[in-house]
Amino acid sequence: MELHPMWHAYPTLETELEETLVLMEDAIHLKNKPVEQAVLQMIHAGGKMLRPAYQLLFSSFGPEKDRKKATAIAAAIEMLHTATLIHDDIVDEAELRRGLSSIRSQFGNSVAVYAGDYLFVSCFKLMANYASSMKSLQMHSKSMESILNGELGQMDNRFNIDLSVADYLEAISGKTAELFALSCAIGAYESGTSRKFAEQAGKIGLAIGMAFQIMDDILDYTQDQQKLGKPVLEDVKQGVYSLPLILALESDATRLRPLLEKRGNLSQAEQHLIFELVHDLGGVTRAQDFAKEYTDQALKLIKKLPATAERDQLAQLTETILSRQS
Amino acid sequence: MELHPMWHAYPTLETELEETLVLMEDAIHLKNKPVEQAVLQMIHAGGKMLRPAYQLLFSSFGPEKDRKKATAIAAAIEMLHTATLIHDDIVDEAELRRGLSSIRSQFGNSVAVYAGDYLFVSCFKLMANYASSMKSLQMHSKSMESILNGELGQMDNRFNIDLSVADYLEAISGKTAELFALSCAIGAYESGTSRKFAEQAGKIGLAIGMAFQIMDDILDYTQDQQKLGKPVLEDVKQGVYSLPLILALESDATRLRPLLEKRGNLSQAEQHLIFELVHDLGGVTRAQDFAKEYTDQALKLIKKLPATAERDQLAQLTETILSRQS
Repeated sequence: MELHPMWHAYPTLETELEETLVLMEDAIHLKNKPVEQAVLQMIHAGGKMLRPAYQLLFSSFGPEKDRKKATAIAAAIEMLHTATLIHDDIVDEAELRRGLSSIRSQFGNSVAVYAGDYLFVSCFKLMANYASSMKSLQMHSKSMESILNGELGQMDNRFNIDLSVADYLEAISGKTAELFALSCAIGAYESGTSRKFAEQAGKIGLAIGMAFQIMDDILDYTQDQQKLGKPVLEDVKQGVYSLPLILALESDATRLRPLLEKRGNLSQAEQHLIFELVHDLGGVTRAQDFAKEYTDQALKLIKKLPATAERDQLAQLTETILSRQS
Repeated sequence: MELHPMWHAYPTLETELEETLVLMEDAIHLKNKPVEQAVLQMIHAGGKMLRPAYQLLFSSFGPEKDRKKATAIAAAIEMLHTATLIHDDIVDEAELRRGLSSIRSQFGNSVAVYAGDYLFVSCFKLMANYASSMKSLQMHSKSMESILNGELGQMDNRFNIDLSVADYLEAISGKTAELFALSCAIGAYESGTSRKFAEQAGKIGLAIGMAFQIMDDILDYTQDQQKLGKPVLEDVKQGVYSLPLILALESDATRLRPLLEKRGNLSQAEQHLIFELVHDLGGVTRAQDFAKEYTDQALKLIKKLPATAERDQLAQLTETILSRQS
């Protein structure tokens, strides 16, 4: 069980994240032992645990911080995230996840379907056992609904060359930012903050999540396959067009459009050409501007929070992850 | 929107089930309209709505029956059931469901994964919005966990020729009976009965669910494909061995074992031979004895409930569905 080394800089949080991992382990009991093993491996394969970290930091702002409850809800959120990854890998037919074989490539789609379902349910079980209010559970299920609606919406957009920046932003808001928003909001709310404060926390999470996903999509164009643990540009071949490509198309579609119309039949050389064109047409640098805007927005809102050690950690963490190069 | 004609015999319940269907419709809002359409079609394609019916009948036993709440929880339970069917069809690679194309065969596995997830989440959202107590949500998520653990366990048992009757009973308890048990228990509990009464309701549901699944498995050997809307003996080819086959193997494995060892490579003629052997070796009649035992157990427990109109309906419904020939 190894946490990402980035957490050394946040010793209290690091301990709480370790407790969160233990709670996740304790919650997973499958009769099917090989699958249990694979799920545990995936949990330990170095996910960054960002969502639980934000949830834990925000749980310091209310009058009723209860460490056991906070870590249980953190575990629930990370299990939810893991469930969506397992199901995403089915949809994307992904071979690798966090540098390991994905559950679907190890055990097939069938096991991956039920393993993801099991984690979804375990997440709700933890929430039902530890959350203090129905309101939290309502927030939680409403967010999850948005997330899944976002995933289904995204599929609708596959191979849509006319996807606008607004469409993209809406899609990542559901797919990624919503869960960051939930993590922050529920962390605050369950520690006893006002509803208004929790909403503000949610806004911060939303901005962080937007920036995070945009950064992730930029990295597809700036990193090589080994470092990321997933095939570069695989998404393009599968019809998922992200911000750098959309911005490049917006700038000049003449050469990109005929390539994209080949859909799944893109050769290696053609994929490489797309990669080059996205850079040359300024898609990457313009996407970086978007990421910066959301990052600045998050940092500005964080600055307005009560001046505590956790507020400073929120700012530091947000700056760190949103300036990552890999 | 057509309810199964069996409900004409229960006019109050019929109205409540119609309201339940409307609530399910209202809860499903997908941006992806073709998928929304398919999910709605599946809901209207004549599922029997047995689980919500039991939930609704048991909700009459407490002092606080609230019709809006009862139908909302009924809708949540049926959505959960629908979610598991959509995911089961991925796992079983099923072409048909309720006589229609399954979601996966219409839209592919990807859509089916997220559509099932969406229904899972909608179920939790309804529960969180309408249930009065965390205790109910805890019951709910604990049952769901058992159900999924059961599904994953069953996969482990595929092609296991040495599957015992006890293994089978444990598997169907998780796969089917648990959700009937939950429906009955949560119906009672949310209407304000004592916890002890709710537990008793759960026991009745468990017995009904066991009998129901055994009947279902018997029908694979006594009905033709058209009437059931799914391929006869497809399960055997996929390595899922049910009670009639297990009992036939127990009685004499000499001829069955070599056939089953062919696994997925069974010809039509060999499948037919298995069918004959299961009958000749008494597998079907002995399985019928099991179904009868669980049915009698359920009816005996129902008889002990307070003498109300709903108790009589419970008894009538249970006798009807457990003596079905199709």
